[in-house]
This record gives sequence, C-alpha cells and structure tokens, in this order.
Amino acid sequence: MPLAPSKAAGLIKDETGAQSLIGYVVDVGGGDGCGRCWLDIGPQHLNRHGMLHGGIAAALLDNASGTTGSLSVDASGKVPFLTVSLTTQFIAPIGAGRVTATGRLMGGGRSLLYIDAQLHCDAGRLIASSTGVFKKVPAERLT
Amino acid sequence: MPLAPSKAAGLIKDETGAQSLIGYVVDVGGGDGCGRCWLDIGPQHLNRHGMLHGGIAAALLDNASGTTGSLSVDASGKVPFLTVSLTTQFIAPIGAGRVTATGRLMGGGRSLLYIDAQLHCDAGRLIASSTGVFKKVPAERLT
Amino acid sequence: MPLAPSKAAGLIKDETGAQSLIGYVVDVGGGDGCGRCWLDIGPQHLNRHGMLHGGIAAALLDNASGTTGSLSVDASGKVPFLTVSLTTQFIAPIGAGRVTATGRLMGGGRSLLYIDAQLHCDAGRLIASSTGVFKKVPAERLT
Amino acid sequence: MPLAPSKAAGLIKDETGAQSLIGYVVDVGGGDGCGRCWLDIGPQHLNRHGMLHGGIAAALLDNASGTTGSLSVDASGKVPFLTVSLTTQFIAPIGAGRVTATGRLMGGGRSLLYIDAQLHCDAGRLIASSTGVFKKVPAERLT
Repeated sequence: MPLAPSKAAGLIKDETGAQSLIGYVVDVGGGDGCGRCWLDIGPQHLNRHGMLHGGIAAALLDNASGTTGSLSVDASGKVPFLTVSLTTQFIAPIGAGRVTATGRLMGGGRSLLYIDAQLHCDAGRLIASSTGVFKKVPAERLT
Repeated sequence: MPLAPSKAAGLIKDETGAQSLIGYVVDVGGGDGCGRCWLDIGPQHLNRHGMLHGGIAAALLDNASGTTGSLSVDASGKVPFLTVSLTTQFIAPIGAGRVTATGRLMGGGRSLLYIDAQLHCDAGRLIASSTGVFKKVPAERLT
Repeated sequence: MPLAPSKAAGLIKDETGAQSLIGYVVDVGGGDGCGRCWLDIGPQHLNRHGMLHGGIAAALLDNASGTTGSLSVDASGKVPFLTVSLTTQFIAPIGAGRVTATGRLMGGGRSLLYIDAQLHCDAGRLIASSTGVFKKVPAERLT
Repeated sequence: MPLAPSKAAGLIKDETGAQSLIGYVVDVGGGDGCGRCWLDIGPQHLNRHGMLHGGIAAALLDNASGTTGSLSVDASGKVPFLTVSLTTQFIAPIGAGRVTATGRLMGGGRSLLYIDAQLHCDAGRLIASSTGVFKKVPAERLT
C-alpha cells in the first residue's frame, strides 16, 4: 500500500553515506515538531550479544534529536545542526523488529538547543534514551 | 609489510554484524590494558555535513571502552560487557583518514566499571571523547 | 494552613548534613512513585552570575532521583541508592523563588535503575534536567 | 607556614553565596591552565551514607571546570562561563579529608569549550570525574 503523499513527503532516505549504510529512515512529517528516525533491525545491526549495537542505537537517537532541532527552524527538517554532546542510556536490549527514535525539544536559545530522545520498539518498550546539546550551524559556515 | 604474529593475533575483525557493516577493527594487543578500535573513514561513514557521523564515532568509543572492560578480566578481550550509559563529546569534525578510539579504565568494582575513551585522528587531534558505565555480563546470563 | 498529616508525613528534612546545609526538603508523599525535592532559593545558593549554582541544582536533581529509586522499593523513600552517574543539562537560569525537582523511573532491573529528573520553578519553567544511573546498595553493605 | 604571595594571590574564597555556604576554595594560581577547587570535608557535606554528597562533588567539579574555562581567556580566572551540560561519574566514596577537583581543557572554539575534571583525595584516589560543555558568557550579557 503506497503511503499518502503528505506522509511520504516527510520521509528522508539515503540522504547521507551513513544513512544508506545503516539503513534508517528519517521522518519529519509528524506535524508535532518531533523528528523521528526508525530502523528495521537486521543481523548487520547486532553486537556480540546478538542485540542492537549501542552505537547504532546512539545513531538513531542522535538523528532524531538533530532532526528535531531542524524542525524547530522550519518544516523541511534539513536545517543543519551539530551534536555538541550526547548522553545515551541503554535501558533494555532488543534483537529484532522495528525501533523508532523520537526527539523532543526541551529548551535552549538562538544557537544551542537541549533535545531529549527515546527509542522504542513497536511493542512500546523503552529501549534507550538520550539527552543532548545541539548547535545550529552558523550561516557563515554554510556558504 | 605483514604484521608481526603477536600483533595480528590481537586484532578482531568481522566478529559481529555491526562490526562488518561499519568496518572497524578491534585491537586487544596493545599490552597496556587499553582496548583500541580503529576505522578508515569512507563516504559510507559521513553525515550530511560530509563529516564522520556522530553515531559511528560513538560506536568506536563504545567498542574501545567495552574492550577495555574485557581486558580488565583477561587478555582475550572477549569477556562480555554491556554498556549501561555513555556520554560522548563531539569535539572536532573529521571527514577522511583513520581514526582510533582508545579506552582507559578509570575505576569500578566487581560488576560496574567506569571507562573513558578518546578518539584521535592519525595527526593526533582529539576528535571525540566519551565517559561511560559498563557492566560485566553476569555468568548466569551466558549459559 | 497546616499540611494534612499524610502529606506532612511524607516530608523529610534535615536528615543529613548536606540537606541541612543546603536546606532542601524531600517529599516522598506524592503517591505517584516520583520522589520530589524542593528548595527556596536564597543568596547562599547563588553563583557568581547571581543565579542558582549548578552544583546545587545537580544536588536537587540527584536527591529527587535517588528518592524515586527508593520509592520503587517501598513507600518510606529511605531505601539507600547510590548515584553511579548523573548527566545534568542547565537549561535556564533562575535567581529566586522555589524550585522543585521531580524524579521519574525510566527502567532498570534488580540492581541498576535509570532515573530522569526535571527541575521546575513555580511558574512551570524547566530550569534543569538530569538523566542518571542509580544502584541499590547491596544488603551486605548495610549491616 | 604562610603561602607565598603569588600562590595566595591565586586563591578565591567567599566570592559567591554558594561558595561561602559550601566552603570550597578556588585556586587559579597553578600556572598550568588548570583551574582547581578544593574542600575540607565536614559533617555538613555528607549524605545519608555518611559520604561526600554527590551534589557537592558535582559542585566542585563544575567550579574547577568553569575556572579552567576562564583561565583559557586570562589569568584572573574570573571571566564568566556558564555550564551547559555536565556528566559526573561517582567512582569512589569518601567521608573525610580534603578533596581537590582539577579541570582540563579538552577542546572547543570561540564560544563553547569541552572541559573534563577529576576529583581526587589527598591520598591520590580518584573520587569522581566529570566531562562538560561550557559557554563563554557573551559580552552583551555582561553590561
């Protein structure tokens, strides 16, 4: 079943090398200001315990958070933000299925934003969470 | 020039799906108790700024730290540790070349370890750093 | 107006040296599993910017979190938990009035708990937040 | 034995309400760019376990870090920096004696600095460590 255009328009795939490598999908179409990032877990995402690798969980949380920062500027979700610092809590293991990271803007000012994110499995269990500091890329560095 | 056997014996490649996907190499042969993990950066590791993706930097720091935990038990570097929490500071961007994460045991007890790690480029610049809490996997969970 | 007995019974004051020094009040009577800790800001709590000192904000968040851990065991709020790691985000400054930290249990197992906390002013503004790892003190260390 | 003048000139006491309350001393006279902050532990600094309260340990690490930021600008150690985020690892308990926090500049740019700090007891044991993001207060906010 094809996605409705307004929904599909909010999905970002294969934008970067890392995104193609890991295979996650960014969703900026939630309409609630929260960036989302999901991944269908495959064997290539597992650590030596057969569970989702912490670095990949961190990547999903980081992407959802950065996208949330972008959405605070405009609806494209593409305004660039840099991650200054990210703390990730690895709360429960997961070895298969889809996981979705959802960001939430907690505060900040013109340049720095505080953004939290949570990674849930489809059954609603909290897998990991993060809290981070993000910085809007200054305009002079974009030219 | 081939690596000396004792050195090559300390390298761990393609042990897990995530390791094969990202392409990093784990080195437990330093002889100093510090786990290492390196990556030759390619286009598949870059974010939308054309720089090493933060999630991949976090994965390298996480692996070097967990390996350092393992090395505190025995020289195989394979005793399993779980990451409880990891804080990553993204200090400088890098877009190409080799980066190496090196872990360092800071303290802890029977079950929990505090491990820091630093990610440097070959020119010696500090790219990112982390501080984390790691937990030895209880023996009853390994059977 | 006097507090209802059940409410007053949930307040803990001057239990420790640090609590008396700083002057915060712990409230375990919320009935929702969330430990709380409040402080009426005075000049003795301010930093060189004339704002609530970050260390004191961290102390309030830490106490609310540890109390939340205790409340996950029993309603006394006094079962001892140690702080393993705490990440604090300093979101907005505040120079006067009452601030209240509220903890929330995010996950964990028999020994380790993941607990977040938020510090709000009476007007409802988010002043600071934290995410931390807490460890139940083993029974053998309490005798 | 009196301190040498150049040394005593580097000590900052009772500068703020929080400093007087807690009783720590800031030392900007190390000459190595590292801010220091020490405290002689008394009963007023203890938690319910009879050990140094985590919030006070965090305050010492925070102060040593912020002072290190100031020292990166000039030798007065008084240029104001705000703490954006601070992660503290509570590595070992301590119940008496002097503890000293020492900051170390890890990187950063014009506005944001990454600063680590370690808290040691006089016997040299690592009690706690921190990693944080600090922001130089913009000049327009100082007038």
